[in-house]
Amino acid sequence: MTLTEQISAVAARVEQRLTGYLAGVRGPAQPPERLAEAMRYAVLGGGKRLRPFLLIECAALFGVKLENALDAAAALECAHCYSLVHDDLPAMDDDNLRRGRPTLHLAFDEATAILAGDGLLTLAFEILATPQTHSDPAVRGALTLGLARAAGWGGMAGGQSLDLEAEGKTLKVDEIRYLQALKTGALIEYACAAGGILGKAEGADRMALETFGRLLGQAYQLADDLLDVTGDKHKLGKETGKDGRAGKATLVAVLGVDKARLELERLEREAIASLQRFGARADTLVETARFVSRREH
Amino acid sequence: MTLTEQISAVAARVEQRLTGYLAGVRGPAQPPERLAEAMRYAVLGGGKRLRPFLLIECAALFGVKLENALDAAAALECAHCYSLVHDDLPAMDDDNLRRGRPTLHLAFDEATAILAGDGLLTLAFEILATPQTHSDPAVRGALTLGLARAAGWGGMAGGQSLDLEAEGKTLKVDEIRYLQALKTGALIEYACAAGGILGKAEGADRMALETFGRLLGQAYQLADDLLDVTGDKHKLGKETGKDGRAGKATLVAVLGVDKARLELERLEREAIASLQRFGARADTLVETARFVSRREH
Repeated sequence: MTLTEQISAVAARVEQRLTGYLAGVRGPAQPPERLAEAMRYAVLGGGKRLRPFLLIECAALFGVKLENALDAAAALECAHCYSLVHDDLPAMDDDNLRRGRPTLHLAFDEATAILAGDGLLTLAFEILATPQTHSDPAVRGALTLGLARAAGWGGMAGGQSLDLEAEGKTLKVDEIRYLQALKTGALIEYACAAGGILGKAEGADRMALETFGRLLGQAYQLADDLLDVTGDKHKLGKETGKDGRAGKATLVAVLGVDKARLELERLEREAIASLQRFGARADTLVETARFVSRREH
Repeated sequence: MTLTEQISAVAARVEQRLTGYLAGVRGPAQPPERLAEAMRYAVLGGGKRLRPFLLIECAALFGVKLENALDAAAALECAHCYSLVHDDLPAMDDDNLRRGRPTLHLAFDEATAILAGDGLLTLAFEILATPQTHSDPAVRGALTLGLARAAGWGGMAGGQSLDLEAEGKTLKVDEIRYLQALKTGALIEYACAAGGILGKAEGADRMALETFGRLLGQAYQLADDLLDVTGDKHKLGKETGKDGRAGKATLVAVLGVDKARLELERLEREAIASLQRFGARADTLVETARFVSRREH
């Protein structure tokens, strides 16, 4: 199986698990249909499921079977999709296209999009706190705390706030790095760390996963910014050239395309180096780091 | 001490704890200042802190000291304030006034209000998952799961979705009750249940708290709807008559003021009756039920 086939196979299992959760049959109360419909639209509309894949592969380093990582992976994807829905809102990035379809507030309405995002974020925590996600409550607690920190004001939400403030301003390189570490880095780092939490990784193993996640997050964002300048709208399933038009602060804008490419290569090398202690067990993660840096969509 | 003094004294302690959390010094990353400022505006602007008070008093039935219930109470208030911020948004209820001050999206901007709500909801889960909230990870897990269910698509967010859908429609009494059970009932029921979780209440004790919370939630909403018709804007610190103008479905509109008052009295009686097994230990909660039903703001 090629890496792309592996990612697709895992994505199908994640999709299946998400479909189960979003059918709304697991909780005690039947959720209102329109809201449930909107949440399904936001989550089940495709996507590479990269973060769940990272979580599952990092957990696999410690012998955790796919089946036993799927709930945590589904929770993570709910949190990721919540952030996409809210970021796309008119008051935020005002995007029309997401994964090749109208964004949620256009397909439904703005109030429903806000609530669907709220519902998905909350569902992420519900899943993490559910005993079937892991039998050990301390593991569930660590997963919950990690997601809350990665997604909250000192993570993803904070990064989005900085991103909005930065529009039209000229940020320094360090400020851009900080912004991106919060906005996209934190959740990708969490994906890797969460695999370690599920696998009860300790000490240097855990730190290696965090380092890998941090570097991979930086590579992911840089690749994304490069694609916004050089990529193909149809392959991407979203608008390109938007960052430039919005005056958004990106490393590509500050460093230029060539220097940004060199930095991306460095990040890829360092991310791969951070996996060395796991030997051949980490081959898939090594390939994933290459994929993330070199992807065309 | 009168009940009002007691509530104020507890509110001051909750405020203090919230101030500590919202100073942003406890987490690993320093949150962006503008977002942190908005979150403080949303949370530290007064309010009776009724839900934290209920949690603390229900926990006290089982010997839990105030000090040991404050973190869970602060988390609950964060989740409550998140819902106020998002409900007030232009795309939702479009409110201008909250606790006697401009709503968050007017004091800051819409994007910041969305993110501040997101940040507060996430912070609620961060606090609940933090070991200092309770030493037993199973207790923290139960608190987390309970809040997620109460706040999510099958609870508060679902209720808000139904409420928006209901505008201009004529709902049946049962549909209104279902909507309100989700929109305001779920979090008040959780406040009482969470006190029991903190106190490791079991069986009939736990059920009694849930019943009390459910009835109190219904009473709270009915009193609120009555105040919207008969109350004083200045005492309330928010607009009155809004439900009627928005064509919102309330029991008062369907039953009329007199029948609604009778139902409120019945709810108060039944809520108090559900506390019988706790004897004099529940005196403060009994008084609270009276206060909630008879309040003027």
